[in-house]
Amino acid sequence: MIQKLQKKSLVEQVASQIQEMIQEGVWQIGGRLPNEADLMEQFGVSRNTLREAIRALVHVGLLEVKQGDGTFVIATSELNAVLQNRIQKATVLEILEMRHALDREAVSLACLRRTENDLKRMVKYRNQCLQFTAENNLEKFVEADWQLHQAIAAASYNPLLIDMYAHLFEEIQMSITSTTEMNDANGAGHKDLILAIHNQDAASAVHCVDMYISHFKQIIIPKNGD
Amino acid sequence: MIQKLQKKSLVEQVASQIQEMIQEGVWQIGGRLPNEADLMEQFGVSRNTLREAIRALVHVGLLEVKQGDGTFVIATSELNAVLQNRIQKATVLEILEMRHALDREAVSLACLRRTENDLKRMVKYRNQCLQFTAENNLEKFVEADWQLHQAIAAASYNPLLIDMYAHLFEEIQMSITSTTEMNDANGAGHKDLILAIHNQDAASAVHCVDMYISHFKQIIIPKNGD
Repeated sequence: MIQKLQKKSLVEQVASQIQEMIQEGVWQIGGRLPNEADLMEQFGVSRNTLREAIRALVHVGLLEVKQGDGTFVIATSELNAVLQNRIQKATVLEILEMRHALDREAVSLACLRRTENDLKRMVKYRNQCLQFTAENNLEKFVEADWQLHQAIAAASYNPLLIDMYAHLFEEIQMSITSTTEMNDANGAGHKDLILAIHNQDAASAVHCVDMYISHFKQIIIPKNGD
Repeated sequence: MIQKLQKKSLVEQVASQIQEMIQEGVWQIGGRLPNEADLMEQFGVSRNTLREAIRALVHVGLLEVKQGDGTFVIATSELNAVLQNRIQKATVLEILEMRHALDREAVSLACLRRTENDLKRMVKYRNQCLQFTAENNLEKFVEADWQLHQAIAAASYNPLLIDMYAHLFEEIQMSITSTTEMNDANGAGHKDLILAIHNQDAASAVHCVDMYISHFKQIIIPKNGD
């Protein structure tokens, strides 16, 4: 009985260590894990134990085994993997409504808690948005826009909200933003939102959120219905 | 190589089937799974395959193996398990702020989409709350209160929001409510909230949410700081 317990905890330990290394960025998304022999030596475990640990992480959606090619990282954490799985089953309207909920709370809290440094980061990403719009670089604009919204969420100083925000909307951000265009209205929206957070004016900040969510809804609803 | 692929998918298949049976309520939270021999026969797999599938589900937090006692269900889905793990690391204030975000969106959408049937369910659970308050039965009150809030979330007709709501706050509901008392203010809050949803008055409904969240914050902040 004791042996069984130890074996189980060994698999769990290896799985946890692999998870930690992924979270710490030692192994990044899209990257391949070292080969079995190297991992067995690194963790000091048998092939069976290693394979079971990897299978558990495949099951949770953190790793993917491509036969004959290797084992690849496909999510940064269990939370990320499971939320990405869930969000793939949701409609764009469901996701926008969820985004509305989290954005309103994030900007309200950011109005209370933002530091000078938070404001500087927001301005930095807004300037990047303007630059990439001028350069007509949609891909870079989408990335800077996502960084800006994450900087606002970070200024909420609520780690639960920040985590949920990052893991729920990480992928979807791309698809929503790329259905619309980079335009001056979007740029002005950012300006008003950052100003409201600077002035700690939660009502105006929430109004900015309401405006861009309703703008996105208008874009998607003709396509997806309600 | 083909054999390896098949074995992997067999473990995955068994794990998925166990997950489905848990989601469908065949095996409920706190319940014990049938013994190994029965499960091996039921799924038509070897002991090793079964054990690996169970280990994967233990890893994700769906099952717990108690040595010498059996395998128990501890969560209803991967999403449930992973969110419960995450929420356990959050402070009560973080959770309340998250709840504020989801409740505001849920009541706003419920004002738009609620049916007569939704309203009936809300009134039913409100009446239960009143009854259990009169009977001074805190445990039953907490359960009815949670049912009422889930009924409101259900009237949002946003499956993503409903899922996140149920899995994030399932356990925490108990601990927050039991730190306060059942009181008339709480009962009146329910009445105003259901009336606002009935009248499709989103501003009043959101005001009700703001009131009870701020009430809960006042209760917890002296204990937890900010």
